[in-house]
Amino acid sequence: MTEYKDIEAAAGRLTGVAVRTPLLSNRQLDDLAGGRVLVKPECLQVTGSFKIRGAYNFLSQLDPDEARRGVVAFSSGNHAQGVAAAGTMLGIQAAIVMPEDAPRAKLENTRRLGGEVITYDRYTGDRETIARELAAQRGAVVVPSYDHEFIIAGQGTVGLEIAQQCAELGMEPEQVLVCCGGGGLIAGTAMALKANYANVAVHPVEPEDFDDTARSLRSGKREHIDSSARSICDALQAHSPGEMTFAINEALLGRGLIVSDAEVRAAMRFAFANLKLVVEPGGAVALAAVLSGKIDTQGKSTVVVISGGNVDGEMFAEIQRAASG
Amino acid sequence: MTEYKDIEAAAGRLTGVAVRTPLLSNRQLDDLAGGRVLVKPECLQVTGSFKIRGAYNFLSQLDPDEARRGVVAFSSGNHAQGVAAAGTMLGIQAAIVMPEDAPRAKLENTRRLGGEVITYDRYTGDRETIARELAAQRGAVVVPSYDHEFIIAGQGTVGLEIAQQCAELGMEPEQVLVCCGGGGLIAGTAMALKANYANVAVHPVEPEDFDDTARSLRSGKREHIDSSARSICDALQAHSPGEMTFAINEALLGRGLIVSDAEVRAAMRFAFANLKLVVEPGGAVALAAVLSGKIDTQGKSTVVVISGGNVDGEMFAEIQRAASG
Repeated sequence: MTEYKDIEAAAGRLTGVAVRTPLLSNRQLDDLAGGRVLVKPECLQVTGSFKIRGAYNFLSQLDPDEARRGVVAFSSGNHAQGVAAAGTMLGIQAAIVMPEDAPRAKLENTRRLGGEVITYDRYTGDRETIARELAAQRGAVVVPSYDHEFIIAGQGTVGLEIAQQCAELGMEPEQVLVCCGGGGLIAGTAMALKANYANVAVHPVEPEDFDDTARSLRSGKREHIDSSARSICDALQAHSPGEMTFAINEALLGRGLIVSDAEVRAAMRFAFANLKLVVEPGGAVALAAVLSGKIDTQGKSTVVVISGGNVDGEMFAEIQRAASG
Repeated sequence: MTEYKDIEAAAGRLTGVAVRTPLLSNRQLDDLAGGRVLVKPECLQVTGSFKIRGAYNFLSQLDPDEARRGVVAFSSGNHAQGVAAAGTMLGIQAAIVMPEDAPRAKLENTRRLGGEVITYDRYTGDRETIARELAAQRGAVVVPSYDHEFIIAGQGTVGLEIAQQCAELGMEPEQVLVCCGGGGLIAGTAMALKANYANVAVHPVEPEDFDDTARSLRSGKREHIDSSARSICDALQAHSPGEMTFAINEALLGRGLIVSDAEVRAAMRFAFANLKLVVEPGGAVALAAVLSGKIDTQGKSTVVVISGGNVDGEMFAEIQRAASG
């Protein structure tokens, strides 16, 4: 089980590897929310998302023998880029199983970062099986995308930075909103935040029909999503909460918030026009939850994690052009 | 004449008003440049550009009688938004004379920030005359967009932050590239940088056909641009260097760099795809100079100022769609 000291150790390993992304404020956002809203833009992170944090923390702890045999990962794109980049930095060969309909930018960047890309059909193939077979053939280690203590500890450095940056600003965060796919980012982030601010509420935000964590938090057991579910948020399509992540999240999180594709598009437009940030759909859900009033922000201090910005130019342009979602 | 202590005083006034924008690094940019490149993204600033710095520093030093009579400014858009926002913060009425073909986002935001917008034809009207007549009618103070010691000192806080942030990173900037219209930003920035790093080279970057500062630095007198000149960079269309700004710039700057509209578009696409930043054309010229090899960056440490991100969604989408400039 991940502990707070593991997150601190991960922060040490990530020094000079991951960027300490800033904590931004924006007047329009504060005005709309009727309170103070701080934005943690992991779209500005190396490889364009937070995923390098967990991937590097995992790969840097392989023993020399494991490192020589290489790693295999399966990912819709952001974890793929994180693993590819971490592999290149550490001299470890990385093969990544990715859906063939992943954003072109994510496929191209994974290759450019030095990853070997193997594609499959998202709706018929089972990426986990493909990855495990490949790993068995090669004797390679599988890099889980969320359900591992090294991954959770690495992603948790986002929460550690938020805690430090709030302290530097002399303020206490009352609520923190984090996107949730498999739950690795929010598990580590909640652990780091709760260790510093016992009263902070940490809420997962998910796309409509991919609300497995929200439902699991209510029922107390790991719920699954329907295989017919579709969302613009390609980065948040895990089928159920992780075993390790849910054990942490069940203990630490507040209620789950749900946003629609239209609300995500509106948040991406807001980020373009006001924050001047390029945000991918899955990266925009926490911001969307604030903008669409899914949580009370009046007179409160709220932190919103923007998890990534890896979106194709064409899709981004189409969303900018559309007057409504 | 602006002095270094005026920039330090401006930084004090701007605390809690302007954002201390981060100094970002990006692996792709470092790889392309063959050296270390740090980006100062003033697109993340309040009102989406650095202009709030000078505007607030100016307005906050008006005496109560002047403040009561209000201010008038003329601007293609970023100074307009800075003056409107500073006016609203300080309770000072602000009228802004803007070209009717200014980006829609700039016109709308200036109104939304509380400014009274008066439009004119950029190619036939004289905005300075219109503004001065209006100011005379109202007894209002004109807020110059660059040629004033308070404006230069305010914009110089960009350079002060760069100097502080480089010190925090334990590195010395060898060259700093800054966009140049009337020259206020670069004059203040160069003054702040040179006070901290005597050997730093500060280069102005201008769009093709708007290279009045580059030519003036060569000839030693204030050159003018041709009235038929056109550029995608709406924010950098001053007709000649300012008197005060040129006196500073002549003493402090290295040679001027020139970029084409196509190079600016390519830099905007690079910023979207790799930096995840929304950058307006005028804000992208310094980045364009690095990407198009207008200056040697091999093995050097270079800081690039991105001055603003106020660009219409339609134009941004069109630039993202175009495969080449």
